[in-house]
Amino acid sequence: MHCIDNLQFANWSEKIFLQMREGGLDAVHVTISYHEVFREMVANIEDWNRHFESFPELIFHGRSGDDVRRARREGRTAIFFGFQNPSPIEDDIGLVEICYMLGARFMQLTYNNQSLLATGCYEEEDAGVTRMGREVIAEMNRVGMIVDMSHSGERSTLEAIEISNRPIAITHANPFFWHPARRNKSNNVLQALGQSGGMLGFSLYPHHLKGKSGCSLTSFCEMIARTADLIGVDSLGIGSDLCQDHPDSVVEWMRVGRWTKKIDYGEGNASDSGFPEMPDWFKDNRDFPNIKKGLLTHGFSEKDVAAIMGENWLNFFDKGFTSRI
Amino acid sequence: MHCIDNLQFANWSEKIFLQMREGGLDAVHVTISYHEVFREMVANIEDWNRHFESFPELIFHGRSGDDVRRARREGRTAIFFGFQNPSPIEDDIGLVEICYMLGARFMQLTYNNQSLLATGCYEEEDAGVTRMGREVIAEMNRVGMIVDMSHSGERSTLEAIEISNRPIAITHANPFFWHPARRNKSNNVLQALGQSGGMLGFSLYPHHLKGKSGCSLTSFCEMIARTADLIGVDSLGIGSDLCQDHPDSVVEWMRVGRWTKKIDYGEGNASDSGFPEMPDWFKDNRDFPNIKKGLLTHGFSEKDVAAIMGENWLNFFDKGFTSRI
Repeated sequence: MHCIDNLQFANWSEKIFLQMREGGLDAVHVTISYHEVFREMVANIEDWNRHFESFPELIFHGRSGDDVRRARREGRTAIFFGFQNPSPIEDDIGLVEICYMLGARFMQLTYNNQSLLATGCYEEEDAGVTRMGREVIAEMNRVGMIVDMSHSGERSTLEAIEISNRPIAITHANPFFWHPARRNKSNNVLQALGQSGGMLGFSLYPHHLKGKSGCSLTSFCEMIARTADLIGVDSLGIGSDLCQDHPDSVVEWMRVGRWTKKIDYGEGNASDSGFPEMPDWFKDNRDFPNIKKGLLTHGFSEKDVAAIMGENWLNFFDKGFTSRI
Repeated sequence: MHCIDNLQFANWSEKIFLQMREGGLDAVHVTISYHEVFREMVANIEDWNRHFESFPELIFHGRSGDDVRRARREGRTAIFFGFQNPSPIEDDIGLVEICYMLGARFMQLTYNNQSLLATGCYEEEDAGVTRMGREVIAEMNRVGMIVDMSHSGERSTLEAIEISNRPIAITHANPFFWHPARRNKSNNVLQALGQSGGMLGFSLYPHHLKGKSGCSLTSFCEMIARTADLIGVDSLGIGSDLCQDHPDSVVEWMRVGRWTKKIDYGEGNASDSGFPEMPDWFKDNRDFPNIKKGLLTHGFSEKDVAAIMGENWLNFFDKGFTSRI
């Protein structure tokens, strides 16, 4: 059984890489860009290259499904790069392939706001996928980079599912039916995603959880069971959205970037603007076995638990990253 | 027998790629940067990606010695990227690995002038490899990018040979003993290069040839024989420096970049500032068989001709591009 977490953004350190090993993570998709332009994103890859050089016994740069299997064999964690915003490709479609060459495997078409490609989930009006958005989706399909609509609006998401000739992902979000947060997804979106062969990664970020920081493991597992009933177990994985060891200034950068001079609280508010506390059964990478145990206790079969904990993402990686370049 | 040309900079087009096939080129090292900073160099790779997408039956992006063998099997030409100047890494050693990830396999430490790394062959004083130069050579050694000293000064070149823990290359230059041009290399440099396992690529650029555009094939082959006597046949290959189909404004960019507001004529002069005419036996890629015939006529064995025309470069690629990342 492989264990994959398909979204994290931590203040990366040896401590965290050791925790990934302790938690049995074979692969983690890490965010390397929120608002960075191309050259800034490259500087973030330079930082990752330093981590790979410094801790080769713990982590390496993953690019394919086979790298997850290799990680398993070698007792290391494969790190996959992704962007939560298309800012690194600027206004230049040629940068899609360049970013793929540098190892990027996921790109969100939007991060909350309108982008050059589509509409984010915090805009009042969602005008759908733009002209450039259609071109970029086709280019992502060609090179083998996954379209991620976690932070996009409803219409844009449905259109992206329709336009993309490869299945897309919502790497980190939960169903709206369970917890009606702006970032959680409607049954409409979830069903279209499942029917197209796409993947949903369940988020552990408290703003996405019923009861927030107080959410119980039982409630979380019950949500997974209901989502499996709705769209099938094969479309489900974990995308924890774990944001570890960051100061609150980093959550502010994630929300505000350079797009406003004011403060935007995103999923928080003025009295609760920092990182919320994690549920006590999922504090960090060492707690993945708790989710596994919770699913087994809830009645999922061994096979279904393996699928949700990593095999579904691995199948998706195998198909999704195959390149035509 | 493999055929490799280890330096060209043309106004790339389908016509030229067809001529590579006609000339039997399995691999060509192409210059993708003279004075470009990182982001500008990336735009040049984007242009190459377009060529690869447009002409997949003729060319593909080469990254390893095995890609040369694959090119041979598939009847295509593998294109290897290189820089004639370290400008794409700016002042940032982390960009060495980034450029390797993007496929760069050769980098000159200087292009005629002083750089952050070493001294070019047109400076009056050569102070040798700089502090950053030593760090960058070590990083190039680690990632598998070849140090190229074609346009460097004597002292810097000797020091680079000494400092580098992998053999280096002079991809395109001729011996000074044959034609005393500023860009051609002393016996001292050639012997140190040969003894360290390095490679010399013979240039066909008329400013590097005895008799310039009127140089005979016999004289060119005689030079190769004398160089083989001096440093051994295993260190020799071709690096034609073919500059095809460019307007004279491009040779001006190569010489002047952004470093001066005046005109610098480089190897030319005010009355002869453009691209010189090529010798009639080497006009373009279709003429590689002429060199091969010339070497056989001159008395080289079949084995030595194969070595000079490509096998030596292929061995060098096999060893030189192996990465520790």
